[in-house]
Amino acid sequence: MNAPLPLPVVEPLDRSLRDDLSRTIDAKTKPQGSLGMLEVLARQMGMIQRTLRPTIERPTMIVFAADHGIAQEGVSPYPQAVTAQMVANFLSGGAAINAISRVSGLTLEVVNAGVATPLAPLHGLVDVPIGPGTRNFARERAMTVEQAWAALRAGAARVRHHAGLGTNVIGLGEMGIGNTSSAACLMSRLCAVPIDDCVGRGTGLDNAGLARKRNVLASALALHRDAIEPIDVLATFGGFEIAMMVGAYLAAAEAKMTILVDGFIATAALVVADAIAPAVRDYCVFAHVSNEAGHRRMLDHFGAKPLLALDMRLGEGTGAALAVPLLHAAVAFLNEMASFESAGVAGREAR
Amino acid sequence: MNAPLPLPVVEPLDRSLRDDLSRTIDAKTKPQGSLGMLEVLARQMGMIQRTLRPTIERPTMIVFAADHGIAQEGVSPYPQAVTAQMVANFLSGGAAINAISRVSGLTLEVVNAGVATPLAPLHGLVDVPIGPGTRNFARERAMTVEQAWAALRAGAARVRHHAGLGTNVIGLGEMGIGNTSSAACLMSRLCAVPIDDCVGRGTGLDNAGLARKRNVLASALALHRDAIEPIDVLATFGGFEIAMMVGAYLAAAEAKMTILVDGFIATAALVVADAIAPAVRDYCVFAHVSNEAGHRRMLDHFGAKPLLALDMRLGEGTGAALAVPLLHAAVAFLNEMASFESAGVAGREAR
Repeated sequence: MNAPLPLPVVEPLDRSLRDDLSRTIDAKTKPQGSLGMLEVLARQMGMIQRTLRPTIERPTMIVFAADHGIAQEGVSPYPQAVTAQMVANFLSGGAAINAISRVSGLTLEVVNAGVATPLAPLHGLVDVPIGPGTRNFARERAMTVEQAWAALRAGAARVRHHAGLGTNVIGLGEMGIGNTSSAACLMSRLCAVPIDDCVGRGTGLDNAGLARKRNVLASALALHRDAIEPIDVLATFGGFEIAMMVGAYLAAAEAKMTILVDGFIATAALVVADAIAPAVRDYCVFAHVSNEAGHRRMLDHFGAKPLLALDMRLGEGTGAALAVPLLHAAVAFLNEMASFESAGVAGREAR
Repeated sequence: MNAPLPLPVVEPLDRSLRDDLSRTIDAKTKPQGSLGMLEVLARQMGMIQRTLRPTIERPTMIVFAADHGIAQEGVSPYPQAVTAQMVANFLSGGAAINAISRVSGLTLEVVNAGVATPLAPLHGLVDVPIGPGTRNFARERAMTVEQAWAALRAGAARVRHHAGLGTNVIGLGEMGIGNTSSAACLMSRLCAVPIDDCVGRGTGLDNAGLARKRNVLASALALHRDAIEPIDVLATFGGFEIAMMVGAYLAAAEAKMTILVDGFIATAALVVADAIAPAVRDYCVFAHVSNEAGHRRMLDHFGAKPLLALDMRLGEGTGAALAVPLLHAAVAFLNEMASFESAGVAGREAR
């Protein structure tokens, strides 16, 4: 058995520059507060990077893929083979996250965290599976606690690799047939939300499929009512890709990256990371609200106001990738705009 | 007197490719509809450009600046000189729209539509003022109908210039101390909304200032109760920058550009253009909802769901500029994503 991970050390955000950042932002040639959430972003990135001039360096998207034993219960309208097929699609550049990563200037990495179908040799794949998919948590725990730790370590290692290459903005995405079921159970248990409020249509279940998914997951939660501690909950209901994302979040916060949080599954992984080290949320930018039922409620758990609301529900990190230009805009206005004084623009009149 | 403009001819959107576009989008390797508003955008751009492979060519932002006689009534907390100072700031690259245009890859043009304060010679300025600011519409019409036509022509000419250079995506922005007052009156009269629901704090009025602005504008609307026809309403309450934007919208729709609609003032100009040629809205992408009171209601007038809601209220075209990456994402997924068939990805299982 592997020893538990020496967990990444996540420091709470250093807020000492907050007032200086606010003064700098308020001196720009615009009405105070008029750039709204871009101002919030600029301030957060300045605090994360401990500078009045934050930058975006080598922004990166890591997509973790894995399969889920719970798929045997018919909780997805797509067959499990799609996970492997989509990994191949990512690597040949044909998926949505490829197109959006290109637009957003993101370096894209694809990680096999534990796909069930054997993968043909694929150029560029980071092939570090924990196993050939998880077990079916409707009957038994999805993985062992040792596997959960191994996945956390592997996810953290990927982020540290990119930190070493200079990345300071990172997004985490996922692919895995059945993983909305896993995420719904993580959310229900760790956020104490009734399962029916956590379950959505995933990739597109009809009403009968949705009812079946609710029943399967409610039974699974009852079966595993003893899973309470974060790592136990993760091992019980999680997926290998989700567990790697948990480790990736922790390592990204440790490395003082700005973290782009994607949709339902990515946020469920953050719920786990946050239960382990709550300071992780200080480094997070909530990129979008997904149309998957339950995502807004999970955002409420973090008191988060997402940047985008585009009726998307695709995963892969697509929502996170779309938010990158907003980060560029936030950094650009802070670094490039003139002040009232430097531009010779009059301020508000005394009244 | 100049003859009225031979108005740009705005054809309704050719929807013949709609079904083909939908089929192409649905064949992409993603659950149907899962890219949400990006799918709507891709379809709209395909119809506008009459192709299954729309592109973004030389995207351009034109910022029109002018002064407003109504500023004499104390409806803004900033002095009128700020309009000219901000024009200089645009041209030296220090304003928010400069920073965001760079991030979004926009060609930026600044037009003096009628600034009151004399401008020092400024490199790059398109200097085509209709006059040194409008008259105070609390007392008399802001401009003559001839001036309104001249401004429409000038705005249309700027867009035609860029059409000749290949631009097929355009955003329109504005700067003008006092212009939320102008926009509120245009909205109230043309959308039949009570003035109190159209008036907001602009660049940051306090409660007393807001009350004063409401009184001033209610009186002005009563004074000019006979202004009903769109061009009359525009001449009575409009600004030179707003009138140029009206002409620019019409010419952009004529040229089959995708038009990015910015915030409160830009949308008020669109209300006028729409009253003249309702088909213009087919070419419009509503980029964001501003925090300026009344903007959401104006969007409702168009049945529009904005792409972004970032608590911004700056103008200059900043909201429109921020939406450009979403257009790139829409075009990229449509042009670059694989289909289920081409990628060898299984579709939904028959149930």
